[in-house]
Amino acid sequence: MQAGEFDVLEGLERVPLALAETARALELIDHHVHGCYVDEIDRAAFEESFNEASTDPIPAFMTQFDSQPGFAFRRWCAPLLGIERHAPADEYWAARAALAPADLDRRLLPHAGVAHWVMDTGFSSRPITDPAAMAAESGGATSEIVRLELLAEALLAGGIAPADFAEAFRTEIAEAAGHAVGFKTIVAYRTGFDIDWTPPIEADVTAAVTRWAAQGTTAPRLVDPVLEAFVVHAAVGTGLPLQVHVGFGDRDLDLHRANPMLLLPLLRRTDVQRTPVLLLHCYPYHREAGYLAQAFDNVYFDIGLGVNYLGAQSGQLIAESLEIAPFAKQLYSSDAFGLPELHLVGSILWRRGMAAVLGRWVREGEWSEDDACRVLRMIGAGNAQRVYGL
Amino acid sequence: MQAGEFDVLEGLERVPLALAETARALELIDHHVHGCYVDEIDRAAFEESFNEASTDPIPAFMTQFDSQPGFAFRRWCAPLLGIERHAPADEYWAARAALAPADLDRRLLPHAGVAHWVMDTGFSSRPITDPAAMAAESGGATSEIVRLELLAEALLAGGIAPADFAEAFRTEIAEAAGHAVGFKTIVAYRTGFDIDWTPPIEADVTAAVTRWAAQGTTAPRLVDPVLEAFVVHAAVGTGLPLQVHVGFGDRDLDLHRANPMLLLPLLRRTDVQRTPVLLLHCYPYHREAGYLAQAFDNVYFDIGLGVNYLGAQSGQLIAESLEIAPFAKQLYSSDAFGLPELHLVGSILWRRGMAAVLGRWVREGEWSEDDACRVLRMIGAGNAQRVYGL
Amino acid sequence: MQAGEFDVLEGLERVPLALAETARALELIDHHVHGCYVDEIDRAAFEESFNEASTDPIPAFMTQFDSQPGFAFRRWCAPLLGIERHAPADEYWAARAALAPADLDRRLLPHAGVAHWVMDTGFSSRPITDPAAMAAESGGATSEIVRLELLAEALLAGGIAPADFAEAFRTEIAEAAGHAVGFKTIVAYRTGFDIDWTPPIEADVTAAVTRWAAQGTTAPRLVDPVLEAFVVHAAVGTGLPLQVHVGFGDRDLDLHRANPMLLLPLLRRTDVQRTPVLLLHCYPYHREAGYLAQAFDNVYFDIGLGVNYLGAQSGQLIAESLEIAPFAKQLYSSDAFGLPELHLVGSILWRRGMAAVLGRWVREGEWSEDDACRVLRMIGAGNAQRVYGL
Repeated sequence: MQAGEFDVLEGLERVPLALAETARALELIDHHVHGCYVDEIDRAAFEESFNEASTDPIPAFMTQFDSQPGFAFRRWCAPLLGIERHAPADEYWAARAALAPADLDRRLLPHAGVAHWVMDTGFSSRPITDPAAMAAESGGATSEIVRLELLAEALLAGGIAPADFAEAFRTEIAEAAGHAVGFKTIVAYRTGFDIDWTPPIEADVTAAVTRWAAQGTTAPRLVDPVLEAFVVHAAVGTGLPLQVHVGFGDRDLDLHRANPMLLLPLLRRTDVQRTPVLLLHCYPYHREAGYLAQAFDNVYFDIGLGVNYLGAQSGQLIAESLEIAPFAKQLYSSDAFGLPELHLVGSILWRRGMAAVLGRWVREGEWSEDDACRVLRMIGAGNAQRVYGL
Repeated sequence: MQAGEFDVLEGLERVPLALAETARALELIDHHVHGCYVDEIDRAAFEESFNEASTDPIPAFMTQFDSQPGFAFRRWCAPLLGIERHAPADEYWAARAALAPADLDRRLLPHAGVAHWVMDTGFSSRPITDPAAMAAESGGATSEIVRLELLAEALLAGGIAPADFAEAFRTEIAEAAGHAVGFKTIVAYRTGFDIDWTPPIEADVTAAVTRWAAQGTTAPRLVDPVLEAFVVHAAVGTGLPLQVHVGFGDRDLDLHRANPMLLLPLLRRTDVQRTPVLLLHCYPYHREAGYLAQAFDNVYFDIGLGVNYLGAQSGQLIAESLEIAPFAKQLYSSDAFGLPELHLVGSILWRRGMAAVLGRWVREGEWSEDDACRVLRMIGAGNAQRVYGL
Repeated sequence: MQAGEFDVLEGLERVPLALAETARALELIDHHVHGCYVDEIDRAAFEESFNEASTDPIPAFMTQFDSQPGFAFRRWCAPLLGIERHAPADEYWAARAALAPADLDRRLLPHAGVAHWVMDTGFSSRPITDPAAMAAESGGATSEIVRLELLAEALLAGGIAPADFAEAFRTEIAEAAGHAVGFKTIVAYRTGFDIDWTPPIEADVTAAVTRWAAQGTTAPRLVDPVLEAFVVHAAVGTGLPLQVHVGFGDRDLDLHRANPMLLLPLLRRTDVQRTPVLLLHCYPYHREAGYLAQAFDNVYFDIGLGVNYLGAQSGQLIAESLEIAPFAKQLYSSDAFGLPELHLVGSILWRRGMAAVLGRWVREGEWSEDDACRVLRMIGAGNAQRVYGL
């Protein structure tokens, strides 16, 4: 991030100087992020891509541009597309549509100031850039996170015998651990968190896979709580960090069953306490996530996704994330998916929100400016570096 | 709202000019509101009227004036009653008690700047003004919302045969749809949201009505989940907007069972998705409500009631309402009941809170001032106009 | 609190003068607090003492100093230990460790400006100061709260016959009522709030005690829901105030089962409505607690513990506590335990937060300054005085 024409802190008042400089220049690690769309999309697909929760088209009576992320795109991305900040939605769309996807990525991504993207390369209905392309387009390094449900589904789709599933899955996990820096589970979407978290015995896994295989679908979807417990414990066994989608997501998910407090039976297991567990997004349960990050040595959390979706109001969310969790237990992420606008705006809003909140605490004498800069570096990069061994 | 002696934005600093003018002058649609008490009330009844949650008298050791709405009345209504702003409680009460109810209404209601009141004319233990009187006293137009539970209870009290109930209720609903602009359910108070939302078959409705009728009360109260599901689906069948009381209310309600996430099984039904569903009040579950308003094309929400009850602290609630829901999915309401102070203060606090929050975003460059004015008009009036076809 | 070298409002801008003076000078009643460690502790024990939720050692990759309370200690306590504000953690620890515990207490406690400590003298794994020592070290008066579970456990450990338990417990309670000003239950830690709150019959109590005694442990732990209901109803029978731990606590507790809404079946009982019930801490369920304080004449709440753990961010929590509960239904507490830093910082942060929040409302004209000072005195001392008869 540089000063001058594109100043991410523009408009914020009285941010102490060293803190402002740190907030502008810090090279972030975005510890949970996805690629960008490879192919051109139409306006409908674009607007749907910044409505996380709905699975329907944007209704005719409105435009999704009239939302916090829509306003943030028009404010922050428009100038990088050569148009005025706050340009009208149609003008924004025209400028965006005039660029090939890769050109758009190259225009926006470098301004995110992300030195390292930790990418969930899991399934997408629309092709997205792989780590190599992200690195080329952004100038940042990349690492990979492997999604557990996807591994299991690929095994079943490959026609594995149910009795061989458990062993084969463990082999896949061990192989993945060779190149990935962590695993991710979307159990929130599949069963919710209120399942039996006891590691299932082999026979129960086999029985569950047998039932699953009997469905005979070509695109099998893991929704069995026994198998969810199995894949999570298999991942935990590697000792690699485990990311867990928590809270806000699309409406297939029962939001209240993705409350991280329902993970207590899992988190209280001493075997699980040897592995870093990273609670992702967490909105609107970020206070509960902060509690867990204080309560368990191995638990971390972020407020990715929420920051993008709250836009101008994200400062309050950022302040709320700085409550009861120790500062060593928080990480930065954008959870951007598909649109490079999200990769960029996630970074800008987080830098602004941190500068505004910490800046006030420094001005009021509660925090020293050195501490504020240090916490910014911890959450923005240092903690992720340590947890993932980057 | 006019400038000069009575400036609703007085004391707020640095609100951008055009935004301030819009916040002052905007003609609101109060999309969920009740009438004012027709008869004089004593001080005890007055104080109880701004404690929403309790069903007991205000205890002797305190006065309900010592609350956010009490302070807001003394700040904003006192000058309109001819006494100093912040006048002591006793003085406020004396000035108020000196006016006949209709005079009080005429003194306060016009200052709310409400062009259209969408009124829930449902049962009240104390007579309240009807739409005609509200229109006359305020200068605003009115429309009517019909409360489902009331219709059903009136049918039963009228001695209908259980086997005829379903058909008769549908006829009532169809008739109501001829003059009302929407329906309202208070299922939150009766069963909570965690019921079976499958549309019941006719025989189950008849059986439930038979059980209900057997209670033999002259003031029947609908509390059967089968009948709640029935009346809601009957209303949804008309396609008219359906208002749903959510969250904060009196203590008969299990607050945590009025969490809107528990409506997911209803909202996921494709038949329901053809009808606008308006989540009312929602505090303290307004973030959850915002999620549903993003997730479902037909879901809307407001933070009425809460704004009045939070008084000077309502700015934060207003900011929190502007998070993940698209701006086309939010509405203004006061949920005022009985006291014209609530009709007025609801409007003033909302105008102030919006001006303060959006003003800051404009000053910091996050939003354009045009967008801020436009969102103010959408939430304050435009969205309601569209949803109710006013 | 005095101006000059140690100004608790230092750094806050534009707090109205009389309000600032009240916030500095107000003699608080800390209505829920514990003693200070009697013996010297090592750094590990010190750091663990300001992580409330974890029951494990602070991990090697971090220091608990890097947290909101850690930063608050370094800001506010360092100067009283003769070092610079914001002194590094090692320097802070060295200065602290150089003082004998009682000297440390005498250095810090008087600056809390607490006129009266209402002390929970319940069991601690490390010896803590008793009321007499607290009074001597702080200059404040003390009263005592008796923990119900402890009384019951002592009875059982004393070898009581199960059939005599109920009567003996009532005798203990009656005796305690002679010297204590209230009781406290930690049912949140033992069963959660979602138990059957019907007063158990004598035979069921005897049966439960029989089962409990049969465990044959020398350190019996009350976890039986029948006995929890019994001890709570026995306490309520005395009419003395009953404190209830709510929300945030260590991880033995299922946070979501310590949501105060789950107390509704208890609070709706008319016999319970004759006794003041004080919901302690409540974070992150303080909005729910405020609702209950509005809904029930006998319910009160505080945000102790949370204020300390939120540090510089506690202003938002304080603002959120001033929402729907009448001002006569809120109290101040620190819930400090072990470290005199917590006794002091709890007071400072609350004074600052109240001055900042109320100061803004006064500046913006929403509240009169007289009202602001009055509410400060009510919540800081007056309400506790009335409830406990101090």
